[in-house]
Amino acid sequence: MNAIDRLVTLFTKLPGIGKKTAARLTYHILDGDAGYARLLGEHLAGLHGAIKRCSLCGGFTEEDPCPICADTERDRSVICVVERAQDVRIIEESREFRGRFHVLGGLIAPLEGINPRDLSIGPLLQRVRRDAIREVILALNPTVEGDTTALYVQNLLKEFSIEVTRLASGLPVGGDLEYADRLTLSRSFRGRVKL
Amino acid sequence: MNAIDRLVTLFTKLPGIGKKTAARLTYHILDGDAGYARLLGEHLAGLHGAIKRCSLCGGFTEEDPCPICADTERDRSVICVVERAQDVRIIEESREFRGRFHVLGGLIAPLEGINPRDLSIGPLLQRVRRDAIREVILALNPTVEGDTTALYVQNLLKEFSIEVTRLASGLPVGGDLEYADRLTLSRSFRGRVKL
Repeated sequence: MNAIDRLVTLFTKLPGIGKKTAARLTYHILDGDAGYARLLGEHLAGLHGAIKRCSLCGGFTEEDPCPICADTERDRSVICVVERAQDVRIIEESREFRGRFHVLGGLIAPLEGINPRDLSIGPLLQRVRRDAIREVILALNPTVEGDTTALYVQNLLKEFSIEVTRLASGLPVGGDLEYADRLTLSRSFRGRVKL
Repeated sequence: MNAIDRLVTLFTKLPGIGKKTAARLTYHILDGDAGYARLLGEHLAGLHGAIKRCSLCGGFTEEDPCPICADTERDRSVICVVERAQDVRIIEESREFRGRFHVLGGLIAPLEGINPRDLSIGPLLQRVRRDAIREVILALNPTVEGDTTALYVQNLLKEFSIEVTRLASGLPVGGDLEYADRLTLSRSFRGRVKL
C-alpha cells in the first residue's frame, strides 16, 4: 500500500466519506499546495493535545475554564443544557443565547447502554445548587432519547425553585406543512402560540 | 481562533466540504481516538514528500518508474491516455486494462488558458516513436474538452501506423433511456453495435 492508498483508507474512516470521496479528497490535496497539506496535517495531529474539556461546562476548549464560562459579560443565572460539545458551537452561531452551557455528554438510551449515571447530570445539579441559577434551558433534540433525558433532568430539578424550559419544537421556518411528519405536526399543534 | 476553528476552516478548503460538514468532521475526530488523528495528520503532512510523478507515464508514485510502468507482465504495446493521474486509479480498479498509461495532465480548454503545449503530449509522441506501440486508447471524458483533446492527439498520431481508439460512449449500464440526455442518446445511436 502506498502513501495515496493509506491516506484514502484513513479518510474513509470519517463519517459520510466513502471510497470515491476519499480518493477525490486525496488527489485534490496531492494536486494542490504541499503547504496546505502540511498545515492540515499538523493541525490534525495536534488537535487532541490542544483541546481539553472545560471543568465547568464540559465543552471543548483550549483553556480551562472555557472562554464562555470565563466571560463575565454573559448571564451567569441561565444554563443551557446540551447533548454534545459541538451543540455549543451551533447555538453560539445563532447568537440567540447569552448565558452559559452545560454539556451532558450524551442522552439516556438504555437500549444502547447509556444510563443517567453515564451523563454529566451530577455536576449540573451541583452548579444549580451552588450558583444563583434562575433558569435551565434544555436544548436537547426532539427525539425519543432527547425527550426521555429532558424528563429525567426536569424531575431532578424540581427540588430547586428555578424555571426549567425546553426549546420549542414544531415546523421549521421556511418549511411546508405538506412535508412535516405526523409527530412534528402534532407537536406544533400542542405548542401553538396566541397571535 | 482556537484549534477547533482553525481545523474547521482548513477542512472547508476541500472540495464538497462546507462549514457544517467541516465542523462535523472536526468534532468526530475530536470525539474519537487521538491516535487516528495523529496518523491521519502525519500522512497528510508527509503526502507530498512521499509521492512524485513517474518520469515515464506522469502518474503519481512512490518510486520512479511507477509500479505499473515497471511491471514487465503488462502489455507494453498499448498506451491508455488519461487526463489526470487519478484516472489511472479508476481504470486500474476496473481491472479492464493490462497495458500502460500516459497522463496528459489536463484537457485542451483555450477559454481556461489550457493549450496543447501545457499538456504532456510531446512525451506521448516520444513514447510512441521510441517504443513498439501498437495501440493508443484515448480514455478522455466525453465532454467538449475531452473531444477536442482526443481529436488533437489523434491528428498528431496519424503519422505513426498504429491504432488509435477511444472509449465507447453511450448509455450507462443499468441506465434508463428516459433519463439519458440528448447527446448521450445520439452518441449511443451512432456507436450502435451489431448483435
